[in-house]
Order: sequence, then C-alpha cells, then structure tokens
Amino acid sequence: MSDVPETRAAILAVGSEMLGPLRQDTNSLWLTARLEEIGIRVVRKSIIGDDPAVIVRELETASSEASLLISTGGLGPTADDVTAAAVARWLGAPLIRNAEFVARMRARFEARGVRMAAVNEKQADFIEGARVLENPRGTAPGFWAKKGECEIVVLPGVPSEMREIMEQSVLPELVRRSGGVVSRRRILRIAGMGESAVEELVEPVYARWKQHPVTILASPGEVQLHLYVRGEPDFAETTVRAMEEDFRSVLKERIFGGDGEDLPSAVGRLLRDAGKTLALAESCTGGMAASLITDVPGSSDYFLGGVVSYGNGAKESLLGVAPETLSSRGAVSEESVLEMARGARERFDSDVAGAITGIAGPGGGTPEKPVGLVWFGIADRDGAATAKRRYFVGDRTHVRRSASVHALELIRRHLVGWKSPDA
Amino acid sequence: MSDVPETRAAILAVGSEMLGPLRQDTNSLWLTARLEEIGIRVVRKSIIGDDPAVIVRELETASSEASLLISTGGLGPTADDVTAAAVARWLGAPLIRNAEFVARMRARFEARGVRMAAVNEKQADFIEGARVLENPRGTAPGFWAKKGECEIVVLPGVPSEMREIMEQSVLPELVRRSGGVVSRRRILRIAGMGESAVEELVEPVYARWKQHPVTILASPGEVQLHLYVRGEPDFAETTVRAMEEDFRSVLKERIFGGDGEDLPSAVGRLLRDAGKTLALAESCTGGMAASLITDVPGSSDYFLGGVVSYGNGAKESLLGVAPETLSSRGAVSEESVLEMARGARERFDSDVAGAITGIAGPGGGTPEKPVGLVWFGIADRDGAATAKRRYFVGDRTHVRRSASVHALELIRRHLVGWKSPDA
Repeated sequence: MSDVPETRAAILAVGSEMLGPLRQDTNSLWLTARLEEIGIRVVRKSIIGDDPAVIVRELETASSEASLLISTGGLGPTADDVTAAAVARWLGAPLIRNAEFVARMRARFEARGVRMAAVNEKQADFIEGARVLENPRGTAPGFWAKKGECEIVVLPGVPSEMREIMEQSVLPELVRRSGGVVSRRRILRIAGMGESAVEELVEPVYARWKQHPVTILASPGEVQLHLYVRGEPDFAETTVRAMEEDFRSVLKERIFGGDGEDLPSAVGRLLRDAGKTLALAESCTGGMAASLITDVPGSSDYFLGGVVSYGNGAKESLLGVAPETLSSRGAVSEESVLEMARGARERFDSDVAGAITGIAGPGGGTPEKPVGLVWFGIADRDGAATAKRRYFVGDRTHVRRSASVHALELIRRHLVGWKSPDA
Repeated sequence: MSDVPETRAAILAVGSEMLGPLRQDTNSLWLTARLEEIGIRVVRKSIIGDDPAVIVRELETASSEASLLISTGGLGPTADDVTAAAVARWLGAPLIRNAEFVARMRARFEARGVRMAAVNEKQADFIEGARVLENPRGTAPGFWAKKGECEIVVLPGVPSEMREIMEQSVLPELVRRSGGVVSRRRILRIAGMGESAVEELVEPVYARWKQHPVTILASPGEVQLHLYVRGEPDFAETTVRAMEEDFRSVLKERIFGGDGEDLPSAVGRLLRDAGKTLALAESCTGGMAASLITDVPGSSDYFLGGVVSYGNGAKESLLGVAPETLSSRGAVSEESVLEMARGARERFDSDVAGAITGIAGPGGGTPEKPVGLVWFGIADRDGAATAKRRYFVGDRTHVRRSASVHALELIRRHLVGWKSPDA
C-alpha cells in the first residue's frame, strides 16, 4: 500500500434541465468510475441551475472539501450557458474573446456548409490564465485552472465531448501527477445464485483481504464482486490478481465472466468456441431470454431462434408438447419443460436448447404452484435432457428478468460441463 | 395564473455509498416529481458523505438558495449515520433520547422475536423542537424543523420508507400551505415518428400556449409531450385539459396513450376490447417485441406467442417462408416480412400477427440494405397484409429497441384502423 494521500474530488453538474424529474445526471457516474481507477475519490456531487451566483457559491463550498473540482455543462452558446463566466468570476480572472478561435470555429462551420450564428462566438470566450482543453467532438473547449491549492476542470455537458476531453487531456495528466499511485479493480460476475449464498461461500476469503475493499452488488439474476486495490502499479496489480485467484478458488465455475463480459456474451463465446448452436422455448419470460442472447452482435452465428409459446396451443403446435402432459401435469411442470426443450431442439435442429416455463405473476399462482415458480429445461443433441426448478421472489418484472438470466446461466453450466452443488 | 411565489426546494442525499461509481441517487428524482406536482421547484441537488461538518456546510449553502430543504439518508443505527446530529447542530438544537420511543422500538423488535441491538437506541435521538414524522415501514423516524425562514425535512434513505413518510406526513401539509396553488401535468405519448416530426406538427399549438412549459422528450421509438400548468386547482385543471385537447386536435390518433399507459398496455387494451389475439414473428429484434408485450400482466389473455426466427432455417420451418423468397429477395425484404407475418398468423391461429426483419448491425449491412433498415409486416385473419419499411439511426441496441416499439405501434394503428399520412 502507499502513503500518498488520496486526492479528493467534487463534481458539479450545471444545468437547470437536470433539476427536473426526468433527467438523470449520468456524467458524474462515469467521472467517478474513471477517477476512482486512478486513485481519486469523489467526496461531493451537486446539480445546480444555470445561475452565476449559485455556481460561484457552489465552487466556494466544494473547494473547501475537495482539491479537484470538475464541472460539466453550461458551455453552450445560449444566454443560459454561464459556467465559463461564473468560473472566471470565482477565479477572479477575466473572460477574453479569442479571435483566432472564433476564426477556427467559423471555418469548421463553413466546412459543413453552415453559417456560424453570432451567438456561437461566445464559445470563444476563454478564461484568462486557464489551460484550454481542446474538444475534438464539439465546439466548446474545456478549461483547466488553479486557485490556491485547488484546481478546477471545466467540461462541456454533452457526454461524448466530456468523455473525450477527459480521456485525451485530463486523465493522462492526473495519472502523471499521482506519483504512480493507481487503483486496480476486478469484477467477478456470478449468476444462478443469490447474494447471501455468494456471501457465505466467499466469507473466509473476504476475511483474508480485509484491508482492501470488496463490494458485493446484486441485480436480478446476477451477483457481482468488486475487488479494489490502491497503491503503486505493481503492488496494486499483483494484489488484485492474488485476490482474484483466491476468490476464484472458492467460487470456481460459478464465475461466468469478469470485467467486460456479460452473461449473454459468455454463453455466446462458449457456443462459438464449441461450434454449437442454440435454440430457446420460452413461456413466462416471453422472449426476454432470446432478446438477451440476441443483444450480442454476431449472435446469429450460434443462435438459431426461439419460440415464445405463451398459450398452450403454441406449446403443442410449435413445440410438440403432448396435450396429455399439459392437461395432467400443467404447463408449469418438469414434464412440460422437458418436452418444450426437446421440441425446440428438434424444430430448430440445434445442438442445445433451453426452455423456461413458470408463473411470473401477479395472477396465476396456486398453493402448489405459487407466483415465482419457474421450471428450466435443457436438451442436448445427444438426447440428454435435464430439468431444474427455482422459486424467485419479487414482482413480475423481477421474476421474468431473474428467470431469463437463470436460464442463460444453466445453459452456460451445461456448455462448460459443470455440475454445481448449489444451483 | 397565480401570483403565489414558487417555493424553492433543495434536496440533499447523505451517504458515502452514493458517491461511488455504482449507485445512483434515485430518491431525488422521485422527490422532484412529487414536489413539482404541488408547485414546488427543485433548484439544487447534492450528494455528500456521512460527515457532520460537510452536512452542516451543505445545509448553510442550500438554505441560501432554497426555503425548503429535504435530506435523505444517514438516519440508520450505525456510527456512520450522522444526519440527525448534523441537522441538530445546524439548527442549534440538542438531540434528546426519547425513552418512550426506545420502549416502542424494543416492543416492535420483540414482536418479531428479535432482540433489539443497543446501537438501535440511537434512532430514538430526537431533534428538540422538531416535529417527529412517523415511519410506518421502518425504525428511523423523520423530522421537520424550522430555522428562520427555512424549513428542513429529514427523511430516511430507504426509498420505500422515504416515500411513505412523504405521502403520509409531508406532501399533504405542503399542499395545505400552498394556498391552493398546485401543478397539473399531462403526458401525451407518441410512437412511430421522430422528435422533429412531432415538433413540426405541434408547432402552431405550442405557440398558443407559450406561457405554460411544454417539454418534448424522446426515447428509442417514443416521443413524449409533457404539458405543465401551475395555478389554482380549477384553473390548472381546466387549462391543462384545454391544452391537451388542442394538442390532440393536431396529433390525433398518433397519441397512443397518456400519463400511465405505455404502448404495450395500449396494444393489450385494444386487443382485449376487440376480443382479438396476437402473434409475432421476429428476426432482428430477437424476442424483444414479444418481451415488451408480455411485460404486461394478463397478456396471456390476448398474446398467443411468437417465433424468433433468427436463422433462415427457422424462417422456413417454423414460419413457412418460401426458400425462393429468401434466396431471391433476401430475409430483409417486403416479401419475406409479409410471409413471416402470414406464417405466424397461421401457425398460432391468431387474429393479427406482426413481423419484423431487419439489420440491427453492427455487421450485415450492404449499400442496398444498410444497418438500420427494418421491414415490418402485419397480417390479419381476413387475409389482409401490409408491409412498411423504416430506417433507424443508432447502434444495435437502439435499432432493436426502436424497431420493437415501432412494430407495436404499427399493430396499434392497425387495431384502431388508422392510416397515418406520416408513418
């Protein structure tokens, strides 16, 4: 570990439109993640309107809590856009129109065959003494200025422009200055089991790495473990790798993927590597599992298709489920789900097929088959077929989402040939 | 309109966990929407850590910009939870442990067969002089206090608890005080056309209602018009109704629904009312349209099912598309989409069937059939079948989502028997 003190950052989102009930400030999440990676901790976030007095007051407050301020928004050409003027006022520096930049802007507009409106000239008003941060994706440049021990980075609010300026001009400089202290994060992703079951499994490992924060995050059908180490690059990398290995030693094949890879992509990779094809039969999930699979670009290489057999008629005519099975066992049963899986495999002539049938609610539950009960089936070209049952707690959306993810996880486990003792 | 000045509110979310890159503060969006409905405007939002000095400073800053402060979070039993103490410090009031409340808490724990931990007693530390807001869903009560002209409402961070206290104790009181000034909002929802096309249509109406804010919001496949009127209840209601009528007079059947009803529900309502059934055949959307339809509880009453015919084999075997059509015209063509729609209608024996085939990208585009091209087909039991083509701009996710929504909109227009001149 390192003794270099963490830089504390504050993020200001400027824009009255973000104070309504409909817009979320997403820039600050991205900024927080990127800053955290280089060891900078965000201690304050605020959203304020386009009012110079309010902006100046917020800069005062924020600068008492953080040594790096990052503002987004309010650099546009309209009268509403007052961030540059407010920052200049806070710094005690004048705004000076840059004639050369006006000419460059005009040339850029003309290259697109558009006459530049007079209001745009305002975007060439530079804060004296501030470093100008070029904006390759838009008109308004950013600024980087210093006031005492505090620094401020002023960025446009358009996410793509903000990100580009950060990546090109701001983050590399911050890394250089950090004296080599960085953060390393690893994400381990697990499906098919609940948060508490994961917690129980990893508890002994967790205890061994107490000095580094490990966060457990749950979403419908998925649990993520975030491992986080701060220090010099070698130390951070070695440590996070050792942590990962330790967690993997107990979680084993339960981990479907790491940082970048989601479950549909992991399933797709396994199918592609094995040269196998997949088909699906869905009842309660109504196409959601197929939609997840086909979210992945190139999924047509291995996904042949699916049947959404919402009514019993479709289960019979399109999947070949026997009417007697449906009448004697019900549509939500081990027998039905196995026939659905076999039927889908045959109709699509796929190597593997998955089937889902359950009660998503809010209606349709009975004491024997309550809302949340879902049967999963998998059929293979070699004739093997397995069924599993699971109860999901939550509303219709949650049950459908959890069941869709769970189906993909069972297909993944089938593909890697892993028999879990706990799912 | 009314001359009562708008109350300005500031929202403070307290909690270090919300300063990481993974958590979004969602309470503030809900609060903003509910406050706006009763004519209170949010002018500032902030997220700060669990640090008393920081909280006090933020209350200072916020109270200079707003006369109503609402804080969420930091009322739990652990050492981290310091909001009540910080607010008390800002007010200059002591925290006093309420013995009666301790006894009540203990009784509640015991009723659940759990012994109350000693740390929980902290949640009985009341701010002297503040009104205590009962929390029917949790342990920590809220507070309502006054400092000069400024009022502060202190709420727990758990969304369900925060909402319940607002609905039960805070909002009714704020309405009473507003001197009868309220806000009325109407949402008109439109699918099947772009934002600029909607803007062009409504421009003359828009101009007639300049004094009341109208916001246009676009999401993939959908455009929303938000009409907003503030004033006395009768005035606000009459005016927003007149505005709505005026907008409806130009938008006509393009409006699929209002405030609460989304497009899948609107389609479901039309099918149910007409006693008709629906089936789907999807290629590029991969089950997303079926998933949207089946998100609606009770959709099994009218949705028979769908085929996700991702490969050409499935288009032939499960939908009966002729191999010659696929080879001569291609899977993304007017002829193929019509055969898909007819095939789905016959296989499921539904009254109506919709079909979607297109190129979602990023691969698979050609100069004649670029990424974003999608064909839609609708077949009816009476033998009628129509096809429409559309180009969507955006990435794979955007094209798939837009195409799924567009398909539902075309089905809706078919059901209401409306021939649009522009979509």
